[in-house]
Amino acid sequence: MLTPNQLAAALAHADSHMGESLDRLRQLIAIKSISTDPAYAAECERAADWIVGELNGLGFNASARSTAGHPVIVAHGPKVLGPRAIFYAHYDVQPVDPVELWNSDPFELTEIRQPNGEIHLIARGSSDDKGQLLTFVEACRALHAATGTLPIPVTLCLEGEEESGSTNLAAFLEANKQELAGDVALICDTDLLDAQTPAVTTMLRGLVADEVVITCADKDLHSGMYGNAARNSNQVLAEIIASLRNPDGSVAVSGFYDDVDEIDAATLASWKSLGFDGAAYLKDVGLTIPAGEAGRSVLEQVWARPTCEINGMIGGYTGDGFKTVIPAKASAKISFRLVSRMDPAKIRESFRAHVRARVPADCSVEFIPHGASPAVSVPTTGKFLQQARTALADEWGRQAALRASGGSIPVAGDFKRILGLDALLIGFALEDDRIHSPNEKYNLKSFEKGIRSWIRILAAFAA
Amino acid sequence: MLTPNQLAAALAHADSHMGESLDRLRQLIAIKSISTDPAYAAECERAADWIVGELNGLGFNASARSTAGHPVIVAHGPKVLGPRAIFYAHYDVQPVDPVELWNSDPFELTEIRQPNGEIHLIARGSSDDKGQLLTFVEACRALHAATGTLPIPVTLCLEGEEESGSTNLAAFLEANKQELAGDVALICDTDLLDAQTPAVTTMLRGLVADEVVITCADKDLHSGMYGNAARNSNQVLAEIIASLRNPDGSVAVSGFYDDVDEIDAATLASWKSLGFDGAAYLKDVGLTIPAGEAGRSVLEQVWARPTCEINGMIGGYTGDGFKTVIPAKASAKISFRLVSRMDPAKIRESFRAHVRARVPADCSVEFIPHGASPAVSVPTTGKFLQQARTALADEWGRQAALRASGGSIPVAGDFKRILGLDALLIGFALEDDRIHSPNEKYNLKSFEKGIRSWIRILAAFAA
Repeated sequence: MLTPNQLAAALAHADSHMGESLDRLRQLIAIKSISTDPAYAAECERAADWIVGELNGLGFNASARSTAGHPVIVAHGPKVLGPRAIFYAHYDVQPVDPVELWNSDPFELTEIRQPNGEIHLIARGSSDDKGQLLTFVEACRALHAATGTLPIPVTLCLEGEEESGSTNLAAFLEANKQELAGDVALICDTDLLDAQTPAVTTMLRGLVADEVVITCADKDLHSGMYGNAARNSNQVLAEIIASLRNPDGSVAVSGFYDDVDEIDAATLASWKSLGFDGAAYLKDVGLTIPAGEAGRSVLEQVWARPTCEINGMIGGYTGDGFKTVIPAKASAKISFRLVSRMDPAKIRESFRAHVRARVPADCSVEFIPHGASPAVSVPTTGKFLQQARTALADEWGRQAALRASGGSIPVAGDFKRILGLDALLIGFALEDDRIHSPNEKYNLKSFEKGIRSWIRILAAFAA
Repeated sequence: MLTPNQLAAALAHADSHMGESLDRLRQLIAIKSISTDPAYAAECERAADWIVGELNGLGFNASARSTAGHPVIVAHGPKVLGPRAIFYAHYDVQPVDPVELWNSDPFELTEIRQPNGEIHLIARGSSDDKGQLLTFVEACRALHAATGTLPIPVTLCLEGEEESGSTNLAAFLEANKQELAGDVALICDTDLLDAQTPAVTTMLRGLVADEVVITCADKDLHSGMYGNAARNSNQVLAEIIASLRNPDGSVAVSGFYDDVDEIDAATLASWKSLGFDGAAYLKDVGLTIPAGEAGRSVLEQVWARPTCEINGMIGGYTGDGFKTVIPAKASAKISFRLVSRMDPAKIRESFRAHVRARVPADCSVEFIPHGASPAVSVPTTGKFLQQARTALADEWGRQAALRASGGSIPVAGDFKRILGLDALLIGFALEDDRIHSPNEKYNLKSFEKGIRSWIRILAAFAA
């Protein structure tokens, strides 16, 4: 239980130490914790150690726990009474290529004032997810500074492999179930509804990622000598990719929609009330025609319908100039976003069968599995959700929206399955944050009000 | 006119000085004349100067002529009576990457004896085209040494930009038409029929090369946020590429076959007599099913039918691991091999129209033109061809085949168009020479019998 004065003191402390909070974000950003690239393994360790050091300095009992991959940080706050919150965020980041498209060093936090007065914090991970992670840490710091403790028992569980498929997280949760027991999970890796409106995300799409390698001839060939008679792996791969979508925009893999539920009318109506402008959403990125299933709104396509995306493809000569090669190999990285009851394993198998059926008899295909996670749906009733919405409304001066997201946060499913916890997905990012892209940014306002929001939410849970 | 004794003396001189000829090949190989890479411009100059020095030492009046790119060597032999032969070969070579796949230094001629007794001369350019170029130079050397002159007037025109698109050759021929006037052109950049059988190549496919860049969104997007609603450039490009071939293996560009002639029965019959084994040809590279037009033999598909090849394609994230990006851009390098009367400009335009028709209205396409040359067909009648065949038969003890090639040698078309000369395409390379690839080789036998073949051919032209 926090008195109004204590809450006010914590908020005031956060405000008056915002420069130091930003300096800490700058330090964390400077550590190149790209989890997918083995060359940066030591940087991932360094990021974990840096965070552990910070947490131990503000009343937590924190340590970086080894896994088969990058460490998971576990940090227990002061032992107090109240509901136990398990907080999740991740300290790893995406690669930065193409680095030449960045206007500043991706690992140097650069503040740029926008025409509308907003300040953008530009850096890899500023939004996804180092900035979001630190909103919670800095909230704890302010509460600790103002009250000498935290209002409820808090455990942080911070991952270093979210951007590389969370390979070791589920096993870690399984092995540390007891230690991570709690009453509510908090996940900070999602968006606001818009720059003025806070949101709790209650639906997330799942993900299946697969890599396909087609091999035709046993070596690269010269198209003068073999062109026509020898199968071209690029052509084979392109035909397979083309076959994945029907002309109406739906995904052509057999049985793909079998476990897809229609969104109920109440939810559709509540989404409608959010005032989302699909045309503007596309126009923002230079597009005008929704590419998904005909007859579905942009919001539905992104939030509630599964998709198939060709995230990467390569084959043959791709350097400067021209080389008339017939490539032996071509490969693609392909992912599916899942909804409702779609089973990742079943979708992966249907996809592979679809591909195999289209590989010529004298060619071969190899698959390399990447991540898999089911869609997540969180009940929209419940005390913690109501308390959090009220706290958010207090901070932002607006009702907190209940929204969906087309992205995937596998940990939400893992928390439910392994720890038995429904997760409150609360974040302060924006859709124009260019996460995973050059010039990623986080609004300074997201960072500031994010910290203040968590102070209020933790206080509310203690009530 | 050469007496039989003079011919025998020239052949004997070639044989007894073969070690020195090989040493000269070794010297020329050691000069890294990679024309496409500006870093090697000085090496290209050095190669030209080395050849000029050799030619001036054996009775030619040779010089390296400047162009906007690398020099063209022009060398006139002794002024004698008889038909004027213009000889073409090129002194530049392909890059050597991936250099780690070479078993020896690409620029050090390495002799490796094979299980069948054949000796392979392994080096970049050993076959394409320095070895072939020197067969003619060394033939002239032997004739000059044995007779004090050459049997006919010979002019060499040696290019240094064949591997980088022959950018400046046509203009050079145009500007030096008078000086390069002749009665027959000889081009040494083609294959034998097989290791035992000489050949004159009378048909070559043409080439049109184009690069396609598809742009959808104005930046890379996150598939969680936009997947389904935003058009994926990889998907668009793959659908375009897939649309280029019909299920029967034919090329689906409108009007593509309009100017394609059927091969006449006599030629087809003569090809049949060559004993080419299409199944073995494919098996050699790990394939069993001809990929071109159904109902056409492998030989026909490669020698006499046009093709469309996807030489390179790339889009999105192609590094290690996985990135769920929706790429803004995807691109492909696509080339067509042409036959008969197909017009490169018309094919390029039909292809571009085909692509444009398949780009969604809110996406865009950009084209980058690369090379273009029409197919070449040389009459199979005519005195020079008959004389050359007889000379080749005398040397190899076998009838010289009249063959086609699926490759493209644009200079043959330029010689016809600009100098009005039909070219005799005579070369001693083999399809397994790994030209443009690591561990390129030239058979020692090709080099030795190539020199002897040219001695006989020049003698025959003097008759």
